[in-house]
Amino acid sequence: MATSTVLVTGGAGFIGANVTRSLLEDGHTVVVLDDLSGGSIHNVPDDALFRQGSACDPAVVDGLFAEFRFDYVFHLAAYAAEGLSHFIKRYNYINNVLGSVTLINAAVNAGTVRCFVFTSSIAVYGANQVPMSEDLVPSPEDPYGIAKLAVEQELRVTHEMFGLPYIVFRPHNVYGEYQNIGDRYRNVIGIFMNQALRGEPFTIFGDGCQVRAFTHISDVAPVLARSVTNPAAYNGTFNIGGDTVYTLNALARATADAMGVPLRVTHLPARNEVRRAYANHEKVRKVFGITGDEVPLEEGLAAMAAWVRRQGPREPSVFEAVEVRRNLPPSWLAVLPDAH
Amino acid sequence: MATSTVLVTGGAGFIGANVTRSLLEDGHTVVVLDDLSGGSIHNVPDDALFRQGSACDPAVVDGLFAEFRFDYVFHLAAYAAEGLSHFIKRYNYINNVLGSVTLINAAVNAGTVRCFVFTSSIAVYGANQVPMSEDLVPSPEDPYGIAKLAVEQELRVTHEMFGLPYIVFRPHNVYGEYQNIGDRYRNVIGIFMNQALRGEPFTIFGDGCQVRAFTHISDVAPVLARSVTNPAAYNGTFNIGGDTVYTLNALARATADAMGVPLRVTHLPARNEVRRAYANHEKVRKVFGITGDEVPLEEGLAAMAAWVRRQGPREPSVFEAVEVRRNLPPSWLAVLPDAH
Ligand SMILES: NC(=O)c1ccc[n+]([C@@H]2O[C@H](COP(=O)([O-])OP(=O)(O)OC[C@H]3O[C@@H](n4cnc5c(N)ncnc54)[C@H](O)[C@@H]3O)[C@@H](O)[C@H]2O)c1
Ligand SMILES: NC(=O)c1ccc[n+]([C@@H]2O[C@H](COP(=O)([O-])OP(=O)(O)OC[C@H]3O[C@@H](n4cnc5c(N)ncnc54)[C@H](O)[C@@H]3O)[C@@H](O)[C@H]2O)c1
Repeated sequence: MATSTVLVTGGAGFIGANVTRSLLEDGHTVVVLDDLSGGSIHNVPDDALFRQGSACDPAVVDGLFAEFRFDYVFHLAAYAAEGLSHFIKRYNYINNVLGSVTLINAAVNAGTVRCFVFTSSIAVYGANQVPMSEDLVPSPEDPYGIAKLAVEQELRVTHEMFGLPYIVFRPHNVYGEYQNIGDRYRNVIGIFMNQALRGEPFTIFGDGCQVRAFTHISDVAPVLARSVTNPAAYNGTFNIGGDTVYTLNALARATADAMGVPLRVTHLPARNEVRRAYANHEKVRKVFGITGDEVPLEEGLAAMAAWVRRQGPREPSVFEAVEVRRNLPPSWLAVLPDAH
Repeated sequence: MATSTVLVTGGAGFIGANVTRSLLEDGHTVVVLDDLSGGSIHNVPDDALFRQGSACDPAVVDGLFAEFRFDYVFHLAAYAAEGLSHFIKRYNYINNVLGSVTLINAAVNAGTVRCFVFTSSIAVYGANQVPMSEDLVPSPEDPYGIAKLAVEQELRVTHEMFGLPYIVFRPHNVYGEYQNIGDRYRNVIGIFMNQALRGEPFTIFGDGCQVRAFTHISDVAPVLARSVTNPAAYNGTFNIGGDTVYTLNALARATADAMGVPLRVTHLPARNEVRRAYANHEKVRKVFGITGDEVPLEEGLAAMAAWVRRQGPREPSVFEAVEVRRNLPPSWLAVLPDAH
C-alpha cells in the first residue's frame, strides 16, 4: 500500500508496540496514543510519534484527529484483565467501551479513515463453546467480554449508518516481547516469568488443568498491521492465534525451562473462569493466505525469556480502585492497601 | 408479599411514575432516584421519597444504599431515544451502561437486594426478526439496543458470579399518562399529541407504513411492579406489550381522533429504522398468568389524551450535545443552536 498515516491506540502496550513496529517497517507514519496505564513509554519506537492521553477523553482524541489526517486506526487501547473485570465493572466499561466509541465518533467525524481495526477477544464467546468459531453466537461470561462484544456491535452499526469500514480481530493468549510482566491480574506467561526472576513459585488458580492455546506475538502483529490492505477482510471478524493447546501445568513446565529455573507451583483456589478455551482459525488463514506454521511454544518462550531477562523483574502492580470486594480471589484481596 | 423497601430509578419518568404508583398501592416504601433529565418531579407521587441525582454517580448511588436497606431495585433510568443514539454514542453508554453497572455494583455490595428488575427493550432484537421472541439471537441495530443488551448480559454474569437475582423486561412502544410529550426524539404518540395541542401537523419519518404494536401503560406497570413476587420469573427475560399492530399512518389517524383534531401529516425523509417491530408475548402471559385482553388503542389514547390536555402543550426540547452530525435527520439538524 502507499504509505499512510496511522493511529495506534495502546501503542505503548504489548500488541500495540509490535503492531507499531510492523507498520513502521512498511513505511507508514505512526502516531501512538497511550495513557501509559498498562504500557510503557520504553516500548514505543523512536520512529513513532507519541502522544500521552486517554482514548476516553474526547478533547484528547478530537485534538489528535485535528492534528493528523488518519487513513487507518488500530484501536488496541483497553484494560484486558478478564478475571478482574467482574470487580471493576465501571472501570471496564469506561476504558473499554467509552474509549472505543470516543474513537469511533472521531473516525466518523473525520471522514478520512479507510479502515478501523479493533482487537476484540475470544472472551466474547463465553464458556463451553469449543472450538470457538466465528459463526457461534457470542455469550460472554464476564464484563470484559461483554464490553468487547458491545464494541464489535458498535462497529457493525457504525458501518451501516456511516459507512466506516472495520476489521475485528479476536486474539487469544498472545505472549512475547514488550508484554507487561508486572500486572498480577493478567498475562499468565508474563506473571510466571516475573515470578521466575523474583525467585518465587509460579501461581496457578485451581488445578492447572484448564486448557488454553498460546500464540507468540510474531504470529499476530504482522497480520494485524497488514490487514487493512486486504479488502476481503473488510467488515469481517477473525479469530487469530495458535492451535496447539496446553494445560496451565504444561505451560508452567515450559516456562520454567525457558527461564532456566526449577518448576515450583503454588495452586490458589480456583476462580470462576472458562475451563477450555481454544479457537478455530480457518477463516483467518483463508482470508489472509496464512500457510506457514505457528511459532512453537518453546521457541516463542525462549525469545520472550531473553527479552524479559534484559528488562529485569517488576514489582507486581495492585489495582486499588476495586469496586466490589465480594468473591474477589483471596490472593487479590490480600494485596489491597486496607485488607484486614 | 410483606411490604418492602424498593428503589425505583427513573421514577420521575413515564414507566417509573406508574410502577411507583403500583408499588405504593401494594403498601411498599418507595424511594425514587431520578436526575430529572427526562422526567418531571410532578410525576412523583407525594407518598414516595424522592432523591434527585444521577444513577451514573457512584457517590449518589452508594449514598442511597447506605441510607436505605433495599429489598428490590427497579432500574428504569435511561435515555431511550433509539434513533438519536447513533449520534450520541458516548452519552448513550454513559447513561445506559455506566448508570446500570453503578447500580448493579451497589446492589451486590449491599447484599440485601432480593431481585433487580431491569427494563431492557425490543431494540435488542434488531431488524427482520419478527415476531420477536425471547429465544431469538439478539442483533441490535443501534447504540441504544447495544447498551440494553450489554446490561442484560451484565445481569446474567452478575447472577452467576454474585448470585444477584434479576428479571429483564423488554417492553415496546408503551404510551400513556405521565409520558414526556416534549421530547422530539422519541415517544411518537406523545409527539403527535403535543403537535395536536400546538396546532401543528403530525410529523412522520418516511411513508408511515412502518409497523409497531403499542401498549397502554396500565398493561405494563402492574406486571413489572408485582414481578418480584413471582419466583418463576426470576432470572428470566420477558417481552411485554401489545399484540395488535398498526402502521404509523393508522396511529396518526387514531391519535387525531383522540385529541379531537383534524388529521394533518407531514412526511419527513425516512430514517434508518426497523420497519416491522412486534413481539411474541406467550412467555410473559404464561409465567405471569395474564389472561385478560389488552387495553384497546382507542381507550388507551383517550385516557392519555385526557391527561395530556390537562398538562397542556410543551416546547419540544433540543438535545444540543450531539456528538456526530453526519447523517443526522435534517429536522433534527435544523433545531441545533448553530445549524446553518
Ligand atoms: N494479549 C492478549 O492475549 C490479548 C488477547 C485478546 C485481546 N487482546 C486485546 O488486544 C489489545 C492490546 O492488548 P495488550 O495485550 O497489548 O495489552 P496492553 O495492556 O499491553 O496494551 C494496552 C495498552 O493500552 C493502553 N491503554 C489502556 N487504556 C487506555 C486508554 N483509555 N487510553 C489510552 N491508552 C490506554 C495501556 O497503557 C497499554 O499500553 C487490547 O484491546 C486487548 O483487549 C489482547
Ligand atoms: N416507553 C417505552 O416504550 C419503553 C420501551 C422499551 C424500554 N423502555 C425503557 O423503560 C425505561 C423507562 O422509560 P420511559 O419511557 O419511562 O422513559 P422516561 O424518559 O420517561 O423515564 C426515564 C427516567 O429516567 C431518568 N433518568 C435518565 N437518566 C438518568 C440517570 N442517569 N440518573 C437518574 N435518572 C435518570 C429520566 O429523568 C426519566 O425520568 C427506560 O429504561 C427505557 O429504556 C421504555
